[in-house]
Amino acid sequence: MAQSKFEYVRNFELDDSILKNCWIVIRIDGKGFHKFSSAHNFVKPNDNRALDLMNVCARAVMGEFGDIVMAYGESDEFSFVIRRSSSLYSRRSSKLSSCIVSLFTSHYVWKWSQFFDFPLAYPPAFDARCVVYPTDQNLRDYLSWRQADSHINNLYNTCFWALVQKKNLSCKEAEAQLKGTLSDYKNELLFSEFGINYNNEQPRHRKGSFLFRTTEKVPVLDKRTNSTTLKQKKVIQEVHQDIIGDQFWKERSFLLDP
Amino acid sequence: MAQSKFEYVRNFELDDSILKNCWIVIRIDGKGFHKFSSAHNFVKPNDNRALDLMNVCARAVMGEFGDIVMAYGESDEFSFVIRRSSSLYSRRSSKLSSCIVSLFTSHYVWKWSQFFDFPLAYPPAFDARCVVYPTDQNLRDYLSWRQADSHINNLYNTCFWALVQKKNLSCKEAEAQLKGTLSDYKNELLFSEFGINYNNEQPRHRKGSFLFRTTEKVPVLDKRTNSTTLKQKKVIQEVHQDIIGDQFWKERSFLLDP
Amino acid sequence: MAQSKFEYVRNFELDDSILKNCWIVIRIDGKGFHKFSSAHNFVKPNDNRALDLMNVCARAVMGEFGDIVMAYGESDEFSFVIRRSSSLYSRRSSKLSSCIVSLFTSHYVWKWSQFFDFPLAYPPAFDARCVVYPTDQNLRDYLSWRQADSHINNLYNTCFWALVQKKNLSCKEAEAQLKGTLSDYKNELLFSEFGINYNNEQPRHRKGSFLFRTTEKVPVLDKRTNSTTLKQKKVIQEVHQDIIGDQFWKERSFLLDP
Amino acid sequence: MAQSKFEYVRNFELDDSILKNCWIVIRIDGKGFHKFSSAHNFVKPNDNRALDLMNVCARAVMGEFGDIVMAYGESDEFSFVIRRSSSLYSRRSSKLSSCIVSLFTSHYVWKWSQFFDFPLAYPPAFDARCVVYPTDQNLRDYLSWRQADSHINNLYNTCFWALVQKKNLSCKEAEAQLKGTLSDYKNELLFSEFGINYNNEQPRHRKGSFLFRTTEKVPVLDKRTNSTTLKQKKVIQEVHQDIIGDQFWKERSFLLDP
Repeated sequence: MAQSKFEYVRNFELDDSILKNCWIVIRIDGKGFHKFSSAHNFVKPNDNRALDLMNVCARAVMGEFGDIVMAYGESDEFSFVIRRSSSLYSRRSSKLSSCIVSLFTSHYVWKWSQFFDFPLAYPPAFDARCVVYPTDQNLRDYLSWRQADSHINNLYNTCFWALVQKKNLSCKEAEAQLKGTLSDYKNELLFSEFGINYNNEQPRHRKGSFLFRTTEKVPVLDKRTNSTTLKQKKVIQEVHQDIIGDQFWKERSFLLDP
Repeated sequence: MAQSKFEYVRNFELDDSILKNCWIVIRIDGKGFHKFSSAHNFVKPNDNRALDLMNVCARAVMGEFGDIVMAYGESDEFSFVIRRSSSLYSRRSSKLSSCIVSLFTSHYVWKWSQFFDFPLAYPPAFDARCVVYPTDQNLRDYLSWRQADSHINNLYNTCFWALVQKKNLSCKEAEAQLKGTLSDYKNELLFSEFGINYNNEQPRHRKGSFLFRTTEKVPVLDKRTNSTTLKQKKVIQEVHQDIIGDQFWKERSFLLDP
Repeated sequence: MAQSKFEYVRNFELDDSILKNCWIVIRIDGKGFHKFSSAHNFVKPNDNRALDLMNVCARAVMGEFGDIVMAYGESDEFSFVIRRSSSLYSRRSSKLSSCIVSLFTSHYVWKWSQFFDFPLAYPPAFDARCVVYPTDQNLRDYLSWRQADSHINNLYNTCFWALVQKKNLSCKEAEAQLKGTLSDYKNELLFSEFGINYNNEQPRHRKGSFLFRTTEKVPVLDKRTNSTTLKQKKVIQEVHQDIIGDQFWKERSFLLDP
Repeated sequence: MAQSKFEYVRNFELDDSILKNCWIVIRIDGKGFHKFSSAHNFVKPNDNRALDLMNVCARAVMGEFGDIVMAYGESDEFSFVIRRSSSLYSRRSSKLSSCIVSLFTSHYVWKWSQFFDFPLAYPPAFDARCVVYPTDQNLRDYLSWRQADSHINNLYNTCFWALVQKKNLSCKEAEAQLKGTLSDYKNELLFSEFGINYNNEQPRHRKGSFLFRTTEKVPVLDKRTNSTTLKQKKVIQEVHQDIIGDQFWKERSFLLDP
């Protein structure tokens, strides 16, 4: 069978390599997760089981791809940041996106039962896109954009579900009451109507989850001497704090190493 | 929180729309499936459970995306063919690739236990690439390339595992014996040494799996009259036959409709 | 001087190869030719000197690049069609566009004095874009689009300048009179007011210029026998006729050879 | 004439916008200038008339496009650097390349007679490519690469033509003598054989031409008071000096403003 006769079709693949020396962000996003979260009775406004599952999948992806130096997740999305000097998969956009989204999805389904005590009703899917940032500032602004977006959504959702769950408003009524209101109004609403100080809500809900590679001093037992010493160990750390201001980055300048 | 200050980063997304009026092929491929198939004791040279699982996942993907008119699978890879006039996701390459590979992976993990009576040792991943073909002939040549490739690999693997399993050769020895040999030699080897007529091997192993949308006449019972009539119903048909020659396409010219 | 230290910057060039087996159209277009044609007192609505110059430049480009099989020009634009199987410059988009537009421009300035008896007031420029068409029908529709556009513009301009030149309307008045009118109105206007039967206008103004490679039988004198024989010779032929209908292409089916 | 029927072909144009916040370099390069320089008897190794013409064309291009902040030229090539924040032509790669190369070519032909006292034998052409650099360091390294390349070529050419012109070697013999030699050898050859101290050669030949936008204080006469004052004026300055070291850039840090 003359394979060579057909092999010319390989040359129709076009190169989709990403410009060198730029930060690469692969953002994955749940497809139809409004329906998915309803079908699986996610707690509203935030389901910690679902968030835990997202984060553990993100850790698995970071464990597989050493060039992902940090990742930011909120709700049903996660952004993976690949260091600017990376040559992973020759920086081919489709290869990077597809491997990351496939591995994430695979872990999501596989680990579902570790976080939920009922089975998946149907298999979920995520899409992925690849965005490229030439400067450290552009990358920080990207992460700030996602965290600001997370904040806006979470404040809204906290109000919305308080109105629905505690005041028995219909979804339409809650939507109508919140339409066009500013942050101040929402903070005041939460406080005066529901006794909720938004700033005391769980940090992971307000700030999302930021994962990054770092080293930690961990105690190691020397069996011969029976003494314990501290050794540096590579870990993926998870924080739920402001990543918009300079403070966070000043303390972790290594994150922006090329 | 001034989100607008950061929103400019959205404009760094580059357009990756695919040229109109071309066939779009999304090919997914198992990552590290040599190791994966060993870790899960796949029957060699072909594990029908694994092939069944691949095909059922491909069907699920075709069920979700109506613009996929056909798909060809072999071993741990599947090629999905999107009709040339499709405007699915505005023909954005990364969106198409990522949604298909994610959904496929999700079904693979979710449906594993329908085909295997032991759990996954670890979650598998697939990569995806997008290739574009301007003419019907180019598309047919692509599919021919994959089927020819499948044939070459399967003939080799059938010999290899016969030598290993039935003649107790080591993998290295089997490899050495087959190195550089032609098809005729391999056919003869199978017949004379193992009594195997390669052409009688299972069609799905020799030809791979071709899935395509078609309509079938199915009997429908009219409850009032208690009579049965035949009605057209849309189905995804699966065949294991030659798709290189013209015959297959002459009989199904609708497959190449734009 | 350590050149190697800097040579890494070459790797920032991204591949812009065009999909194989597609028609490649490079369209060049005069930059600011409204001003340019005024500055050089082009005859309105059509200046045959300027059109002759455009065509002779297009011929020079076709003479240089054998893979350009046809070209269509009107006003200050020209579309060059590169055959679908071409591998000229490895089908790199920027290389093809830039070489063609540069050579065209160079000839335009160099040959100006062959067509105008006064010098250029300032050097003109053209832009270039590259568009890709997967099927013969798409390519024909592209050429039809340009010819239809040419027709619409020329009918309008013929009316406009008749009103200005023969009825002494101001440009604003002429514009106002023609605004929103259909072809029928314009044809009638030309006939009743100016005695012009639009269909008798010069074909090159109504249809634009289509250049294509063909062979012609030319008489060749054999000096020994003093007899004349006809021999095939490659020529670039220029026609001014309808290229929208099928007739033109039926008679020259070779134009669409890959 | 139903234009709308064909207008769909416009949608086949693919977006080729360049990533934001990156330096854009358009490098043009003479096509077949080995032959062109012979045909026009360019002085070897450097023809100041030809270099003057290149520079005056580059100035014209910079005059037309205000977003080009600097340009570096040597031999028959010129690199134009567009500032990183530019939105000229929506950063469309083909538009930028084609407009620049066309305008450059147009001036080259138009201004030829200002520098040469004989006419062009035939019209020259240039190609253009677009390269993108994310950081200031990458851009500086690009310019260093071109200047280092220029140095290597000019040192070689100075030796080569000295051997040919002053020692009557054939081109082949000169090539053979220089093959594989290092800079030290070439410097020594020039000094000992021809009394040439390479460092005293014209800076424009050794360093190429760097053009950049700056402001200059120019004396302006106030007619009323008949006194002269200095006013800032925008100019394009031309220098022939080292742009590899830090000194040049420290003194002109504004060049790297976004």
